Amino acid sequence: MVEPSTRVPDSLLEQYQSVSNATVLGKLLQRGYDKTYMNGVRSLAPGRRLVGRAVTLRYLPSRPDLAKRVATGAHGEGFNETPRWQALEAMGPGDVFVGDAMGLSTVSTGGDVVFSRIVTQAAAGLVTDGGVRDGHKVVRYGYPVFAGDSTPTVGEPNILPYEVNAPVQCGGVLVWPGDVILGDDTGVVVLPSQLAEELLPECVEHDETEQALLEYTQERKISPKSFYPFNDDTKKIYEEWKKRRG
Amino acid sequence: MVEPSTRVPDSLLEQYQSVSNATVLGKLLQRGYDKTYMNGVRSLAPGRRLVGRAVTLRYLPSRPDLAKRVATGAHGEGFNETPRWQALEAMGPGDVFVGDAMGLSTVSTGGDVVFSRIVTQAAAGLVTDGGVRDGHKVVRYGYPVFAGDSTPTVGEPNILPYEVNAPVQCGGVLVWPGDVILGDDTGVVVLPSQLAEELLPECVEHDETEQALLEYTQERKISPKSFYPFNDDTKKIYEEWKKRRG
Amino acid sequence: MVEPSTRVPDSLLEQYQSVSNATVLGKLLQRGYDKTYMNGVRSLAPGRRLVGRAVTLRYLPSRPDLAKRVATGAHGEGFNETPRWQALEAMGPGDVFVGDAMGLSTVSTGGDVVFSRIVTQAAAGLVTDGGVRDGHKVVRYGYPVFAGDSTPTVGEPNILPYEVNAPVQCGGVLVWPGDVILGDDTGVVVLPSQLAEELLPECVEHDETEQALLEYTQERKISPKSFYPFNDDTKKIYEEWKKRRG
Amino acid sequence: MVEPSTRVPDSLLEQYQSVSNATVLGKLLQRGYDKTYMNGVRSLAPGRRLVGRAVTLRYLPSRPDLAKRVATGAHGEGFNETPRWQALEAMGPGDVFVGDAMGLSTVSTGGDVVFSRIVTQAAAGLVTDGGVRDGHKVVRYGYPVFAGDSTPTVGEPNILPYEVNAPVQCGGVLVWPGDVILGDDTGVVVLPSQLAEELLPECVEHDETEQALLEYTQERKISPKSFYPFNDDTKKIYEEWKKRRG
Amino acid sequence: MVEPSTRVPDSLLEQYQSVSNATVLGKLLQRGYDKTYMNGVRSLAPGRRLVGRAVTLRYLPSRPDLAKRVATGAHGEGFNETPRWQALEAMGPGDVFVGDAMGLSTVSTGGDVVFSRIVTQAAAGLVTDGGVRDGHKVVRYGYPVFAGDSTPTVGEPNILPYEVNAPVQCGGVLVWPGDVILGDDTGVVVLPSQLAEELLPECVEHDETEQALLEYTQERKISPKSFYPFNDDTKKIYEEWKKRRG
Amino acid sequence: MVEPSTRVPDSLLEQYQSVSNATVLGKLLQRGYDKTYMNGVRSLAPGRRLVGRAVTLRYLPSRPDLAKRVATGAHGEGFNETPRWQALEAMGPGDVFVGDAMGLSTVSTGGDVVFSRIVTQAAAGLVTDGGVRDGHKVVRYGYPVFAGDSTPTVGEPNILPYEVNAPVQCGGVLVWPGDVILGDDTGVVVLPSQLAEELLPECVEHDETEQALLEYTQERKISPKSFYPFNDDTKKIYEEWKKRRG
Repeated sequence: MVEPSTRVPDSLLEQYQSVSNATVLGKLLQRGYDKTYMNGVRSLAPGRRLVGRAVTLRYLPSRPDLAKRVATGAHGEGFNETPRWQALEAMGPGDVFVGDAMGLSTVSTGGDVVFSRIVTQAAAGLVTDGGVRDGHKVVRYGYPVFAGDSTPTVGEPNILPYEVNAPVQCGGVLVWPGDVILGDDTGVVVLPSQLAEELLPECVEHDETEQALLEYTQERKISPKSFYPFNDDTKKIYEEWKKRRG
Repeated sequence: MVEPSTRVPDSLLEQYQSVSNATVLGKLLQRGYDKTYMNGVRSLAPGRRLVGRAVTLRYLPSRPDLAKRVATGAHGEGFNETPRWQALEAMGPGDVFVGDAMGLSTVSTGGDVVFSRIVTQAAAGLVTDGGVRDGHKVVRYGYPVFAGDSTPTVGEPNILPYEVNAPVQCGGVLVWPGDVILGDDTGVVVLPSQLAEELLPECVEHDETEQALLEYTQERKISPKSFYPFNDDTKKIYEEWKKRRG
Repeated sequence: MVEPSTRVPDSLLEQYQSVSNATVLGKLLQRGYDKTYMNGVRSLAPGRRLVGRAVTLRYLPSRPDLAKRVATGAHGEGFNETPRWQALEAMGPGDVFVGDAMGLSTVSTGGDVVFSRIVTQAAAGLVTDGGVRDGHKVVRYGYPVFAGDSTPTVGEPNILPYEVNAPVQCGGVLVWPGDVILGDDTGVVVLPSQLAEELLPECVEHDETEQALLEYTQERKISPKSFYPFNDDTKKIYEEWKKRRG
Repeated sequence: MVEPSTRVPDSLLEQYQSVSNATVLGKLLQRGYDKTYMNGVRSLAPGRRLVGRAVTLRYLPSRPDLAKRVATGAHGEGFNETPRWQALEAMGPGDVFVGDAMGLSTVSTGGDVVFSRIVTQAAAGLVTDGGVRDGHKVVRYGYPVFAGDSTPTVGEPNILPYEVNAPVQCGGVLVWPGDVILGDDTGVVVLPSQLAEELLPECVEHDETEQALLEYTQERKISPKSFYPFNDDTKKIYEEWKKRRG
Repeated sequence: MVEPSTRVPDSLLEQYQSVSNATVLGKLLQRGYDKTYMNGVRSLAPGRRLVGRAVTLRYLPSRPDLAKRVATGAHGEGFNETPRWQALEAMGPGDVFVGDAMGLSTVSTGGDVVFSRIVTQAAAGLVTDGGVRDGHKVVRYGYPVFAGDSTPTVGEPNILPYEVNAPVQCGGVLVWPGDVILGDDTGVVVLPSQLAEELLPECVEHDETEQALLEYTQERKISPKSFYPFNDDTKKIYEEWKKRRG
Repeated sequence: MVEPSTRVPDSLLEQYQSVSNATVLGKLLQRGYDKTYMNGVRSLAPGRRLVGRAVTLRYLPSRPDLAKRVATGAHGEGFNETPRWQALEAMGPGDVFVGDAMGLSTVSTGGDVVFSRIVTQAAAGLVTDGGVRDGHKVVRYGYPVFAGDSTPTVGEPNILPYEVNAPVQCGGVLVWPGDVILGDDTGVVVLPSQLAEELLPECVEHDETEQALLEYTQERKISPKSFYPFNDDTKKIYEEWKKRRG
């Protein structure tokens, strides 16, 4: 297990609730972080916002001998998939389960029984580039779910959970344990934990400037052409917008 | 035409209405039936449950000489696509149209005029790994529709209906005429007709055990870890759940 | 810039509002126009109908020297993406922005600030085989949006707008400036401008015949088999339907 | 089993040996046959020309109960895959095995033991949109092999041979038993049997005209621009070429 | 038509013959040119090196009315595809035909008659992300050919040549007329014309340093670990290598 | 780092040189090992046989902060990619480098300088589901190379080596350090180390029986139908074949 060097506090997570994914992605890109958007991972419950710290689980292709190695749980009978339970038991409020299923979008990483633990842990949500078994049931728990697909398949003959809180790929993006996972209707963006604090004010200002600019141009029925990309005139509009808001 | 050796009775179909697709798939897998989930076939009307006996139609790539061979219908003018009508006319309550369109998801297998016949036949629904023309109109008939996609395209220049009630592939899965076709928001699972009766009690018990387990752990806000995969403790929880239910 | 030889009048556009995309595609196919349906372009706001004249924008893969060439806008600071603004400024009521993004479905062609201009121009809508940044925000403007995907990504490091009102491909279909762009829940069909007037009566008659046939067969609970493809009996049903309607 | 209405004689097959696949495809296209080129099927032995009559075998997705149905061969022990042997035993000189494996390019349709029968039958070759097991061994038999891929996999858990000499799809193309299968380094083209005789003279003339034109323009180091597509001047060049050849 | 601002002289092209594609790509990447490698474009004649200036041809999806617009050649009968001839007639020694076929790898951009013109023009070669008709014949001309595939298909019903020497995409990469096109067995890299001179010495030094390093470590049977990425010790090895070479 | 529980001796590896990949895959399948064939990994040097013990390297998507973490090599200047060197330095005769590049087939895992170390280590070869930079140069070292593709791209902006001798996926298959990696012209099969000894005699017998059967039926020009799948008659043929061989 890797301990994240920076633990992003709940208060900071809270502030990201109202920031746009696209804005965070843009600011990360300016710092050279150019692979932050997960491919092939979509919201199974459109409209829900996800913000949380990554608890990662790395799956591997299944194999009979691997199954024996990883199944050393309490009951010792049948297959217990210990690493998956380790990940779920380690979660708490503000944490997000991130399952690296090697992009196998229709293979199950778990279903409504397993992922019911996210509710009782009061955790933030669920992300995987694999499938979620009976996704339409899992979304009833009310937390945000982002996955490759909803599926009726079984995981075990295809993939096995292997390792908790190692750095993983998910949807082609690196996820380091503790990274901030941001989900909205465009999908999932990964914000490295050590940048979360630094980026917030820029993101908020960016979103507000966009808002100010939109109100300004829509009211006057004019083009945003002269104000975009942002320039001195845009700043003026933003400054006035802030004054009016008080 | 192939006659299914086992005709699944309506009463059995009715009982599968409340069983989970994922549960059926799991039980089939335990018996070595490992290709039962259709790839690339999704619900065009989320929320609708489909249960019914397969009436199959095999499409082939279109060719001018094939068009002449298959069009020998009543009117003799233009293209009558007789095998498609044969399939639709053969349907009744509890039957599902299953169109093997060779996975050509945006090619039309039929549209709202053709598939209006499913309504007047009081049949159970429509499944294809091809496209459904004007899918947003077809779903207004109220029956469940599972397809590769909704499309505005025309079938005839691309594919032709060729054969009724032969065994076919659909979404990479074998469908034998009379097989039970199960659709929910995770897609479509195929249950061989001769297994339908045998599997039902296991499926019901599995679904109920999951339900009992979920209620037990959610009420207590504890992990299902020790009870999953199912073991003796899970059985106890289930037995008590059944008693309480009476 | 290419001037379309035929400007389709607003009154004609209006009449296409109630015509089915599938019907238009079928009539075009009969005239040898066999590539009229955009692949991989779907409605981000299901239920909305799009009819309008194409204003095209051709994107190219990004490159530092190309960025310098195309950015020669008013402010001269930063990147102004002039051709995109040219396209948007050229639009008016009844016009549709058509962005050829070379099928890069998750790459942004613009977001809610840029495409807010479609609202103030009172234009008809937005089509691209690329992505729309923050698509869930853009659809709030109320106009129809058809795209490869909704995305949080940034366009500039990936693609650059290059040329306005040149003929382009979009979703594998030729779009000539001024062509009629038709969108519904099955996606987008392109109707060459010079055929718009000629095709309308056929399309209307076709849609009405289908409607008459459906009412006839559904009321009587009979098969449409003998009336489809359309024949003399179908025509009779249609004639009576028209009489009853008065 | 379907009997082809026209049996293409060996003498005609022989004459197609020197005709170009591209030319045949072009002539078929002019008659409205627009789906004649197999997608995803390539030569495992580049340089070998294939011409022969199709003996078709239709595979289906595997299922335990289907395995029992199709395995009713002589030995009765284990899996005999009778329909595959039926197809191979039915072949003779000038025949081509055409396996419809539903486009599963890495799934085995057979290997060097099974396809050794093509040698002892003195048949023309092997085509499938599935895989050929140990393709590098099969090509040592010396006959042309066209397949989705060479693979070490086993067929039976994935697909099962079901039906001999039914019309099938292969690589997205209709193949009717008896059709002429033409393979070269560009892949495989299907020529409907009833058109084989009619098309030959056109194809030969086309290929010779191209040859004449190429010699004419390459010798003079001039552009073929004025002679292509073929026109009266091209015909003159061709006539003179024929005279010179005697 | 766009005139390239910098015409890369033949002498410079000649020097790139012995430079590695990978090295050029690496040096371009250091300057921020990160999309220079064509996806899905491979050598049809492995072992041949391609270096030349791009003459571009932009194809569009075919449509009957577009066919009429572009076919206004000398003979006026049939389809002359004038822009394609314009491109080929404009070529000379050191020029490469670059066909933007929108990535349609099995659609023909031309065949052995059309591309015979590259021989009589003594031009450098042929690149397209579409298909080359009868590619196995075209490679017999002896020049390098890079394409999506070799195909027997016909171009006209699918794509039409539209515009000569406009900037295009090919394999997802921008190609500006006059850019240096570099092909080897790894595929095709595009070098913007204005960087060709500046980059050469760096590339040569890089390739030579690699060569020196390889000889040094292979002779001594030691790891290149301490010298790679290049550092002061590597430079010493290189300096001595140059001395020995004289 | 994980130590393999069983070290497969060189003598055993040697014996697998003449065993068919397909045979090994078949025997593994009978024991329930059903995911042993790497998808999308092909020989860059057809004709070369690979047998060796896996030394694994796990790559991750690149990120600026990850680059800093993994680059802590001797020189401290630039990027040293320590885990990749660790893997290569750990290799010896009979070992195979197995790079899990997450299936990114055109992204470089290394080139001819880096992989020259395989020669000086006298190791067995190279396998990756990523790309090999300048693959046509690497194959000149004479060892077998299996990869997603040959590529001119650079690895570092896309992927980073992270971990040595952890269990990984490669081409969708689990590879445990020390597993036997088998490559031939059909691709790569993974044989778990603990099964290597047990499987060998079965494989040899299977291959020999096939050989005997082929000789028997080819000589007599008869069908192998009655002897395949293997039965008592096949065994007799095999026994006689062994006697004749002495």
